[in-house]
Amino acid sequence: MRIDGRNPKAVRPIKITRHFTAYAEGSVLIEFGNTKVLCNASVEPKVPRFMKGEGRGWVTAEYSLLPRATQTRNSREAAKGKQTGRTVEIQRLIGRALRAVVDLEALGENTITLDCDVLQADGGTRTAAITGSFVALVDAVNTLFKGTGVYPVRDYCAAISVGIGSEGPITDLCYEEDSKAVVDMNVVRTGSGALIEVQGTGEHGTFSRDELNALLDLAETATDDLMKAQKEALGEAAQHIGATYEDSSSDAQ
Amino acid sequence: MRIDGRNPKAVRPIKITRHFTAYAEGSVLIEFGNTKVLCNASVEPKVPRFMKGEGRGWVTAEYSLLPRATQTRNSREAAKGKQTGRTVEIQRLIGRALRAVVDLEALGENTITLDCDVLQADGGTRTAAITGSFVALVDAVNTLFKGTGVYPVRDYCAAISVGIGSEGPITDLCYEEDSKAVVDMNVVRTGSGALIEVQGTGEHGTFSRDELNALLDLAETATDDLMKAQKEALGEAAQHIGATYEDSSSDAQ
Amino acid sequence: MRIDGRNPKAVRPIKITRHFTAYAEGSVLIEFGNTKVLCNASVEPKVPRFMKGEGRGWVTAEYSLLPRATQTRNSREAAKGKQTGRTVEIQRLIGRALRAVVDLEALGENTITLDCDVLQADGGTRTAAITGSFVALVDAVNTLFKGTGVYPVRDYCAAISVGIGSEGPITDLCYEEDSKAVVDMNVVRTGSGALIEVQGTGEHGTFSRDELNALLDLAETATDDLMKAQKEALGEAAQHIGATYEDSSSDAQ
Amino acid sequence: MRIDGRNPKAVRPIKITRHFTAYAEGSVLIEFGNTKVLCNASVEPKVPRFMKGEGRGWVTAEYSLLPRATQTRNSREAAKGKQTGRTVEIQRLIGRALRAVVDLEALGENTITLDCDVLQADGGTRTAAITGSFVALVDAVNTLFKGTGVYPVRDYCAAISVGIGSEGPITDLCYEEDSKAVVDMNVVRTGSGALIEVQGTGEHGTFSRDELNALLDLAETATDDLMKAQKEALGEAAQHIGATYEDSSSDAQ
Amino acid sequence: MRIDGRNPKAVRPIKITRHFTAYAEGSVLIEFGNTKVLCNASVEPKVPRFMKGEGRGWVTAEYSLLPRATQTRNSREAAKGKQTGRTVEIQRLIGRALRAVVDLEALGENTITLDCDVLQADGGTRTAAITGSFVALVDAVNTLFKGTGVYPVRDYCAAISVGIGSEGPITDLCYEEDSKAVVDMNVVRTGSGALIEVQGTGEHGTFSRDELNALLDLAETATDDLMKAQKEALGEAAQHIGATYEDSSSDAQ
Amino acid sequence: MRIDGRNPKAVRPIKITRHFTAYAEGSVLIEFGNTKVLCNASVEPKVPRFMKGEGRGWVTAEYSLLPRATQTRNSREAAKGKQTGRTVEIQRLIGRALRAVVDLEALGENTITLDCDVLQADGGTRTAAITGSFVALVDAVNTLFKGTGVYPVRDYCAAISVGIGSEGPITDLCYEEDSKAVVDMNVVRTGSGALIEVQGTGEHGTFSRDELNALLDLAETATDDLMKAQKEALGEAAQHIGATYEDSSSDAQ
Repeated sequence: MRIDGRNPKAVRPIKITRHFTAYAEGSVLIEFGNTKVLCNASVEPKVPRFMKGEGRGWVTAEYSLLPRATQTRNSREAAKGKQTGRTVEIQRLIGRALRAVVDLEALGENTITLDCDVLQADGGTRTAAITGSFVALVDAVNTLFKGTGVYPVRDYCAAISVGIGSEGPITDLCYEEDSKAVVDMNVVRTGSGALIEVQGTGEHGTFSRDELNALLDLAETATDDLMKAQKEALGEAAQHIGATYEDSSSDAQ
Repeated sequence: MRIDGRNPKAVRPIKITRHFTAYAEGSVLIEFGNTKVLCNASVEPKVPRFMKGEGRGWVTAEYSLLPRATQTRNSREAAKGKQTGRTVEIQRLIGRALRAVVDLEALGENTITLDCDVLQADGGTRTAAITGSFVALVDAVNTLFKGTGVYPVRDYCAAISVGIGSEGPITDLCYEEDSKAVVDMNVVRTGSGALIEVQGTGEHGTFSRDELNALLDLAETATDDLMKAQKEALGEAAQHIGATYEDSSSDAQ
Repeated sequence: MRIDGRNPKAVRPIKITRHFTAYAEGSVLIEFGNTKVLCNASVEPKVPRFMKGEGRGWVTAEYSLLPRATQTRNSREAAKGKQTGRTVEIQRLIGRALRAVVDLEALGENTITLDCDVLQADGGTRTAAITGSFVALVDAVNTLFKGTGVYPVRDYCAAISVGIGSEGPITDLCYEEDSKAVVDMNVVRTGSGALIEVQGTGEHGTFSRDELNALLDLAETATDDLMKAQKEALGEAAQHIGATYEDSSSDAQ
Repeated sequence: MRIDGRNPKAVRPIKITRHFTAYAEGSVLIEFGNTKVLCNASVEPKVPRFMKGEGRGWVTAEYSLLPRATQTRNSREAAKGKQTGRTVEIQRLIGRALRAVVDLEALGENTITLDCDVLQADGGTRTAAITGSFVALVDAVNTLFKGTGVYPVRDYCAAISVGIGSEGPITDLCYEEDSKAVVDMNVVRTGSGALIEVQGTGEHGTFSRDELNALLDLAETATDDLMKAQKEALGEAAQHIGATYEDSSSDAQ
Repeated sequence: MRIDGRNPKAVRPIKITRHFTAYAEGSVLIEFGNTKVLCNASVEPKVPRFMKGEGRGWVTAEYSLLPRATQTRNSREAAKGKQTGRTVEIQRLIGRALRAVVDLEALGENTITLDCDVLQADGGTRTAAITGSFVALVDAVNTLFKGTGVYPVRDYCAAISVGIGSEGPITDLCYEEDSKAVVDMNVVRTGSGALIEVQGTGEHGTFSRDELNALLDLAETATDDLMKAQKEALGEAAQHIGATYEDSSSDAQ
Repeated sequence: MRIDGRNPKAVRPIKITRHFTAYAEGSVLIEFGNTKVLCNASVEPKVPRFMKGEGRGWVTAEYSLLPRATQTRNSREAAKGKQTGRTVEIQRLIGRALRAVVDLEALGENTITLDCDVLQADGGTRTAAITGSFVALVDAVNTLFKGTGVYPVRDYCAAISVGIGSEGPITDLCYEEDSKAVVDMNVVRTGSGALIEVQGTGEHGTFSRDELNALLDLAETATDDLMKAQKEALGEAAQHIGATYEDSSSDAQ
């Protein structure tokens, strides 16, 4: 029996609120139980210097825990003048995960930045950030898409944490479970079932191939559920994912 | 007629949501129209080094705009490694304003940090931050207060921006009004009607003593309204403000 | 009776030395009693990036206390790698104050930077810095002005601190008075009597509208005195302030 | 056929040179083909502040690419004043990997820092760093170990990169292979065959469960080979790994 | 003939003003022609951490060019968040030079910090800083000295720049001479004629042993002159330099 | 008798290994006894901004001690976010020394950066760095030189430390000798016998002109020896040093 009475395979209640703030091209508040992450997607008509003139776009992410997202206050990174190693590691992961489902050529020379600010942290903030950012990304891409050519988002993308607790493999660990787990794994998957990223860590223990497989099985089920939630939240906005459109205006030529 | 149809003297719709996040000792989402600021109050049993052993507490504030709180994305201060001058100026103001209504001796050797993170910015973020932080502060102080002695919060504290627009003095400027105002003033007041801080700036023009008085008149009305909203939001939690309690347990001695 | 025997309304002895250093376009040592601030104005034919090509100029300020300007040594900001919040707040105030009397269009695409380095600090360093910087600014503008069109300096600008001490309102507080004052206010005014900035703070107490008015009355008298001293120090150099000149060379056309 | 003619399953020539520098408690130059990493282990009789007085030790790592380890010069992190996100991510991985095989209680209140400085980089620097650091760690631990109780190193630890290139799964990718691989995975394993860390990334593509399994099979073979090389390099120095010793001196009591 | 008509061997007019500012234990404005450096000596009853409890004191220096000390404005180091390499190099030199004539044991556990802020720079700022700091140091030491034991200042210390210009060796180069010199040398000497530091640099050329000797001859004459000026400026305050006093109060024992 | 039995005039065994790493245009491991410095020379077709379009090149250096190059671990500068004053001072010296023998016009608009990373430090790291960097510089220049015009390297350049120990002047001090020496001097010389830089410091004592001369005599002998070793190490690669070539292809015109 888990702390909150959940089934080992159960994801916490998922809530995805689109248009949470007014100005970002995509703005999503995602909740995995008590974990709440605000994912804002901004579109800017520019690319990093090393990509200029190549006709391709870029997707990147920044992550931050609000100082009092956690049970005790963390010092503010802006005040210290430095992001922690954990922050750097997480924001790199979010960026990589989303780029895996984006067609950068189709994006044109635009940058989409995902700002993931954790309002409340109860475990799984990076997986919630990826899952919520995907929804914000689609809303942001829709402000750019002109209805012809390749739609820049090729597939869904969702992430979940799984781990081995005292009673075996469990899905979507809350903070207390996470701090006791011997193995912790974050898995990012696409809608077509492919893996984007697998990060399993046994700092407080090690794990066997069988355990790895059991964790991946849990992650597959959970990410499938998350992608259903994304699809439902997006509704009409999801219609172009993975599609290519001919330019009918050029048919006449 | 103002952009949003408001009366020159009118404050935008105010909404104060307590317990917005779960872990902070005080957590308030305050809304002044489209401006939304999350004010988390954290209590820590320590004081800055220069105050150690003096038996007094400290109240301080940190402020941040989420990168996409605004119409176009601002770069993240933690990523740049530096807070902007504007951020520094605002967080110093918030701290000073709240300290003016706190009895630091009654607080004991505790620090209360107000983290003001702007989720959405449409003008007046610093005055919303002060007004919301006061409510969070009271909730945080209540976790410390033991029912005897001086209650550490002496009086209410609320703030409003006023300014001179093209048609004269107006209250609670939204972003568009603020960017066009010739004079901009932030006023912080107590429940008993005293002034805590008056900051009037005429960067795009100058102002006369008469104009200053007209602005202060507007600010008095508006901060009175804001303090009513604070009182209503706090309900029972506001009961000790300004009070002193004898220690009944010592009566028996 | 004040610490130094002054009348409550009296400004300390003011001394303005122009051409204090040799290379700056304007260089003024200003003394308010024991407070001594070196104000150097530099003209550079460039503007901040966000203003390029708009044909307007910019006026900005930087402020620093020399480490041993004060009774005990402050650590050097350059060695710590960070300006304090106080420094940031003050230099923003100086810049705003001076911009209020400068016609940025008339300045052309030039930046004037006021470097205010406090050699000795006995209270009122920010008001001395504004008052001295104005004189340095005029000298610097005169190196640019070609004798036709609008002269870039529209009016005088001077600043004074006033406050409420144990015996009531006083003008131009020295350090010891400042550290004991319950209310501290900095007022910046123009030669035509308009207010540019009013910053009143009651961190160690609060203040009423009547007290605010009493302080503003003191500030008016004092800034009038300071502007007389500026005028006297500038002599001939002040002749163009607020003036517009027709271009006689174009009369012939 | 691979770029350098290697079999898909083949690790590049491995060379482990102990005592490469004179002062560190453990100093290893490890070469995976053209990749050369200097791994210095330092023992210091202290622990991070948050662990003081708990009787446990700590193992941590720092990583750096020398500016000209690579084909074109990278700017020096010390000169920029900031470690890159990649550096931060890698040094966290190295620390976690080694802690997984160290008994921190047995280490006592000592910190072992692994400084991994890449002299030459041709892909796989993080896996070479882990594999070489393990050897340096054992040499460093041997300077502390008194012959009784639990030996602080519980098991071997080695790491390898595997990936999916244009012709399928390959082991120990060189830089050119790495930059073209669609999937890249780093695997850290113990001598007893357990997994410590699995990090698979499909930024330039995605991967199936079958592909993941094929990659893990390659990684198992390769890390077994690496641990043989570690064992051979350590010789006598490896004798205590995983052992517990009774304190014979107390037998006499 | 030199730019300013000086004899090749001539030092520029030297002016030493003691008590230039009011609060520092020693405060000297030193002028070498147009070069003006404010040297403040602060005494603090503490030592760097690595010296605690050893009973010895420390002497250190910090150096800064005010932004407009020079012909064109330099950006402010505090604003950039970083001291330049030139600043670091110079302040290390000043500290070393003065420590060479101070008996750190006799100083007790006190730190004397020399803050050298260049108000106007026309070449030779580092040598002026050393020469002026010596005077400020003596004034500061005199606030500590109790009249018995070893006086902490063992000997005089002065510095001069010499160089090889287009017409041969010259003393005390002004900025224009310095920027054209093929060899530039800074020499620090004691009152008893010993060398403390010799830094000769031939970046724009090289130099022979004979040229080195010619430069040292010039430096000897010049530093002798500077030490006369120091002695004169200090007057009575110089009386203890190099002396040891018996404790007469212990005679009675 | 010296610690290691050396003659006072003797340089430690010198070993120069070219092509130590594979990618840099010049890569030299230089050993002065136990001191080992890796000197990598990188050629980049660009110059600092202030030199653009002038047709001249630039030579600069960066220096770093690996954290465990020393007997006890030094904290990593990249992790602290700041280079130490010692590092800054040394890398400026290396750059100046090499520029003195390079014809920047002949180099064209290229920058050569010397990265000097100390793998093991036993005194004399800066002089080893200069001596080794010269060899790496020649290798790097040879990748640019087209066989006509002025060869960019005008002369040899080597450096040695000399000092006054308890038994008089000694050459090439090891760490233990260096920490006890009363005077420490670094001398950089050219192949034609000219001095480039002389830096003598008497922090733990002072020195006379006679002692200075004795030290310079030692330095001359030692640098002559070092330049022989450079010549031998370079072999054929040294053939163009100091030469000018006519462009035979233009003879035909």
